Amino acid sequence: MQAIIEERKRLSQTRVTKAVFPQTTNHHDTLFGGTALQWMDEVSFIAATRFSRQRIVTVSSDKIDFNHPVPAGTVVELVAKVVEVGRTSLKVRVDVFVESLYADGQEKAITGYFSFVAVGEDMKPCPVLPQSFIDGISEARP
Amino acid sequence: MQAIIEERKRLSQTRVTKAVFPQTTNHHDTLFGGTALQWMDEVSFIAATRFSRQRIVTVSSDKIDFNHPVPAGTVVELVAKVVEVGRTSLKVRVDVFVESLYADGQEKAITGYFSFVAVGEDMKPCPVLPQSFIDGISEARP
Amino acid sequence: MQAIIEERKRLSQTRVTKAVFPQTTNHHDTLFGGTALQWMDEVSFIAATRFSRQRIVTVSSDKIDFNHPVPAGTVVELVAKVVEVGRTSLKVRVDVFVESLYADGQEKAITGYFSFVAVGEDMKPCPVLPQSFIDGISEARP
Amino acid sequence: MQAIIEERKRLSQTRVTKAVFPQTTNHHDTLFGGTALQWMDEVSFIAATRFSRQRIVTVSSDKIDFNHPVPAGTVVELVAKVVEVGRTSLKVRVDVFVESLYADGQEKAITGYFSFVAVGEDMKPCPVLPQSFIDGISEARP
Amino acid sequence: MQAIIEERKRLSQTRVTKAVFPQTTNHHDTLFGGTALQWMDEVSFIAATRFSRQRIVTVSSDKIDFNHPVPAGTVVELVAKVVEVGRTSLKVRVDVFVESLYADGQEKAITGYFSFVAVGEDMKPCPVLPQSFIDGISEARP
Amino acid sequence: MQAIIEERKRLSQTRVTKAVFPQTTNHHDTLFGGTALQWMDEVSFIAATRFSRQRIVTVSSDKIDFNHPVPAGTVVELVAKVVEVGRTSLKVRVDVFVESLYADGQEKAITGYFSFVAVGEDMKPCPVLPQSFIDGISEARP
Repeated sequence: MQAIIEERKRLSQTRVTKAVFPQTTNHHDTLFGGTALQWMDEVSFIAATRFSRQRIVTVSSDKIDFNHPVPAGTVVELVAKVVEVGRTSLKVRVDVFVESLYADGQEKAITGYFSFVAVGEDMKPCPVLPQSFIDGISEARP
Repeated sequence: MQAIIEERKRLSQTRVTKAVFPQTTNHHDTLFGGTALQWMDEVSFIAATRFSRQRIVTVSSDKIDFNHPVPAGTVVELVAKVVEVGRTSLKVRVDVFVESLYADGQEKAITGYFSFVAVGEDMKPCPVLPQSFIDGISEARP
Repeated sequence: MQAIIEERKRLSQTRVTKAVFPQTTNHHDTLFGGTALQWMDEVSFIAATRFSRQRIVTVSSDKIDFNHPVPAGTVVELVAKVVEVGRTSLKVRVDVFVESLYADGQEKAITGYFSFVAVGEDMKPCPVLPQSFIDGISEARP
Repeated sequence: MQAIIEERKRLSQTRVTKAVFPQTTNHHDTLFGGTALQWMDEVSFIAATRFSRQRIVTVSSDKIDFNHPVPAGTVVELVAKVVEVGRTSLKVRVDVFVESLYADGQEKAITGYFSFVAVGEDMKPCPVLPQSFIDGISEARP
Repeated sequence: MQAIIEERKRLSQTRVTKAVFPQTTNHHDTLFGGTALQWMDEVSFIAATRFSRQRIVTVSSDKIDFNHPVPAGTVVELVAKVVEVGRTSLKVRVDVFVESLYADGQEKAITGYFSFVAVGEDMKPCPVLPQSFIDGISEARP
Repeated sequence: MQAIIEERKRLSQTRVTKAVFPQTTNHHDTLFGGTALQWMDEVSFIAATRFSRQRIVTVSSDKIDFNHPVPAGTVVELVAKVVEVGRTSLKVRVDVFVESLYADGQEKAITGYFSFVAVGEDMKPCPVLPQSFIDGISEARP
């Protein structure tokens, strides 16, 4: 079982790279907190879906610090990894790295944790690891 | 001083009402968690700005629960209030209420707390209550 | 009957507050007329829906003056109120107030009137005040 | 003078064709009134700019009727023409035609009139027909 | 047959005029290549649909050169024409012209060719000229 | 020199993962060709920038085939790699893979090649590999 979980964690890592253009920045010319939260929710949703291959809904976001402003004219890379696996729930960690357009190297700017549950067609929680995965079949029943 | 703070809390209450159209919902036909976070950050940013009339930056969002799905075809009303005032920081509470298009009555769906600091032109923290407000003048120096 | 109408007018008041960020302004750095019209239509549509709790469609917008430019770096507050009630139609007034980010006080910038009709499932006009409301039940049949 | 005005009216005609995809329609599956207003303002702004080649700002929109719903899965064509020319102001007429994706032929759905003024760098009204046009030079001084 | 094709080519010409506002430009203040591609695909899709009045899907875009930068504060006009007609496929040429806000005259900035096929309800290719058009009836069966 | 080029190719690989929600699909419920082109331009622009750390502008897109429709309710992963390096120009290959939300495994759906040049402040072409990189310093002069 633990081996399956580790394998699915590996399979579910998700990366999104974005150029921070002026359209997504506020009047201090830094990325809106709300835009960052939206991007982080989307990438963590994909990671949770890739882990479970079930219907996934967001349950909560943990406390998130924005102490590192992300200026326009940079590139951000969001990396989402499943870090905790319950019976019907998952926790995904998202790290947001910022890099200059004109220099190598990244710095971590934001870290967040998002919790999700897997749900059936009736929208009731169901196991995040479907029986088919435990049986070694790679397709879940949505 | 406390009277000024209470008066500014009253002045800074901010309301945003939105129709939840299909464009903002996911494939389960409920509002994206990330879209809700973005809307909550925007309304709380306005409330913090109205309280302080200084440059305001988002510092953190507290844990937020999304246990009440917000379906398409509803109206949501976001209400933001300043609830804690430090020397250079503010905490804003945002309640998100959901109502049917076709029936009276609202239910609380999401509650979140966002923290902000006031900053000067050098982007360093400065008092959220400028001296001009304590002196009874309603215009701050941005 | 008049009492029900006054009560529903009160219930239907709708407020939307928005920060005017550079994304919504033209190359003179003032809010696009077309963006203002879109925001005004949306808030008046919600007010009309809250009054009637029926399907509502926009019928017309009256002459609207834009003599007060709305610059970037301000906050606007849109307030929509039902002002006329016909058998199957409604007129909603929207006032748009503008305030500086850095000073208290609002000025009225734009006023518009939007007309709506309530329609049934067949898209034909139907009473804006459903019988259930006259009978004192708060849920309409959409 | 009248010949120059007629020539500039001809030069300023502006056409925009758009597919009405579900993203721009409401929950009755017809185009939002507010989206139509935004499109009409944009096309009439370009027509006014092409006529005058000065900075142009929207002054007002006349009463607009939306009695012809525009369903998703259609194509709309907006045609804007300058119809009245004052010393510092212009009126532009916008007709919105709707056509099925799957049949020839268009029907007029919406007509609107938008008024604009030409302004100088000081944002004060200036002649819509710059002296250079009257002198037969095709470039205005913005 | 050739006469029908020429007539439909004439009917299918499609024009879109757009103001290039800062929202659509990159940090060099010129139009994004990707935004230009998206606009060109949309206008050529409408031209192909107007020619055929069938369901149309994009098959390919030919090599496109962007050697003429399109700065913010200009107007672009996209003109799409059907230039090649196969049994189930079409090729559409899109020219993108750029003009200053403040001077008459246009320059060609970009040219692209997009290929489309007509498809039936089963998403399989079908004739771009439906029998009804050859028989002189202006409505196709989608 | 070749070693530096290989190292920078490795450093510049860029990944973007996206959920294909109904907002980005057409009325056949598949991804718009134009939206795919925009996403491909953006990810290849980031890869080119990461390779060169200079100002980068899009020069052309090669022929691109869309023979594999990308339905709503899938996840796409775009992978961009620098594949050719000239003195002042770069070619980037973008592969777009599609995967079901509910099953493991990806299929390649679209491949495109985008060409870029590095430009100086005067917008004239300049070496894609700045001297500082050849000298082993990781920061270019923008």
